[in-house]
Amino acid sequence: MIRRGFQAAARLGHHKALPGGPHILPRFSPASAFGSSTDSLVSRFCPEKTDLKNYALPNASWCPDMLSLYHEFLEKTKAEGWIRVPSFKSNRDHMQGLKLPLGLPVTSDKSDWRIFTRCIETEGQGYEYVIFFHPSEKKSVCLFQPGPYLEGAPGFAHGGSLVAMIDETFSKTAYLAGEGLFTLNLNIRFKNLIPVGSLAVLHVDVEKIEDQKLYMSCVAQSSDQQTVYAKASGAFLQLQLEEDPSQ
Amino acid sequence: MIRRGFQAAARLGHHKALPGGPHILPRFSPASAFGSSTDSLVSRFCPEKTDLKNYALPNASWCPDMLSLYHEFLEKTKAEGWIRVPSFKSNRDHMQGLKLPLGLPVTSDKSDWRIFTRCIETEGQGYEYVIFFHPSEKKSVCLFQPGPYLEGAPGFAHGGSLVAMIDETFSKTAYLAGEGLFTLNLNIRFKNLIPVGSLAVLHVDVEKIEDQKLYMSCVAQSSDQQTVYAKASGAFLQLQLEEDPSQ
Repeated sequence: MIRRGFQAAARLGHHKALPGGPHILPRFSPASAFGSSTDSLVSRFCPEKTDLKNYALPNASWCPDMLSLYHEFLEKTKAEGWIRVPSFKSNRDHMQGLKLPLGLPVTSDKSDWRIFTRCIETEGQGYEYVIFFHPSEKKSVCLFQPGPYLEGAPGFAHGGSLVAMIDETFSKTAYLAGEGLFTLNLNIRFKNLIPVGSLAVLHVDVEKIEDQKLYMSCVAQSSDQQTVYAKASGAFLQLQLEEDPSQ
Repeated sequence: MIRRGFQAAARLGHHKALPGGPHILPRFSPASAFGSSTDSLVSRFCPEKTDLKNYALPNASWCPDMLSLYHEFLEKTKAEGWIRVPSFKSNRDHMQGLKLPLGLPVTSDKSDWRIFTRCIETEGQGYEYVIFFHPSEKKSVCLFQPGPYLEGAPGFAHGGSLVAMIDETFSKTAYLAGEGLFTLNLNIRFKNLIPVGSLAVLHVDVEKIEDQKLYMSCVAQSSDQQTVYAKASGAFLQLQLEEDPSQ
């Protein structure tokens, strides 16, 4: 019964169903439900001062291409409006003081929770990445270097690891660009394999925001832009994070 | 130059391009290129005796639902033609004595490579899963229990972790059902979130095999079949693994 109850609560179901189900989400007016300014969303997710470890900083495992592009974008944060998105161990850290909508429970136990794309702590073995976001242009760039624990075909990143990286970049972009919270769908066409240890650059654009949904596109390619690794599109559902009265 | 050379080799490019590119793959006749029987593919990928650790066996972290369904399918391996697919640390272990087609290099260094879906060794923290395959019906069932390192929204599995699990189940199914090797595309519609620590059952079917491609579908749902987590489809490219003369 406990499990059943948990599943029922977790379900975005019944009158809270995701589109496509038999029931329709309550409609919000953009002014009331999605009135948070990009500035306030950014300041909430990208605190300048925090004691939390930021995993989106260079380490010794980063390849020269990744370091070089990182510093290039860091320069752009000074003059061209780009923002370096911090990356904490768990989305719980990004959401401090907030709770999920639709009655989804957030357990507050002390388990060692990690966001999937930071599941491997050893530098260089798993996901190395940093996301830069441009608020006014509603676009992001993710520098992604897959390590040897992300392997699929020998020597190459697993397609699923790239999809997860795209989903995570979509996710942060969707939230910062318009309170997009839940992935509704993803479509990925794979073109070439990414060698483990090399850099893939993900260019993400918000194509449109319509009917409570953000539509995004992604091109993942090599740093010299000569090799396209994958093209993807996805849609996210807009939902507001609510203040958590218990905190 | 080394990096560029590596990328060029990794590319399924030029006259070896994936469909959609400017060049077309050489056509093979099914008799010559894909003549391996399902039995030989299964015996190659599912050796009965090996010293390699099989990660697809029950451990103390498996929830009662997962254990129960595991034993149910284990019974079906005795009478109903199902096969329990072993899961080694790396695809290199599954491919012993074979090499990738298209000149893709497989480095033979002693790095700690891991298949992405076995990237976290601590039992219960990351991916727990086992795949059962039915050769004559060309379908699979994957029992998947996401751990707390696979989190997206607090308390729930990251969408990307589910996609990677679907891709991996597609991948093993595609190979065993018809030498499908490379993911060409994936399309996923998310319906509900999977609570961390609970069981998701992935039902995968090969819909058709046509023009060197395997087309597959997947429904991921709760064990009581009351909650659909996601529906997916994907296409894989058929390519033969070649004998490795160096071994």
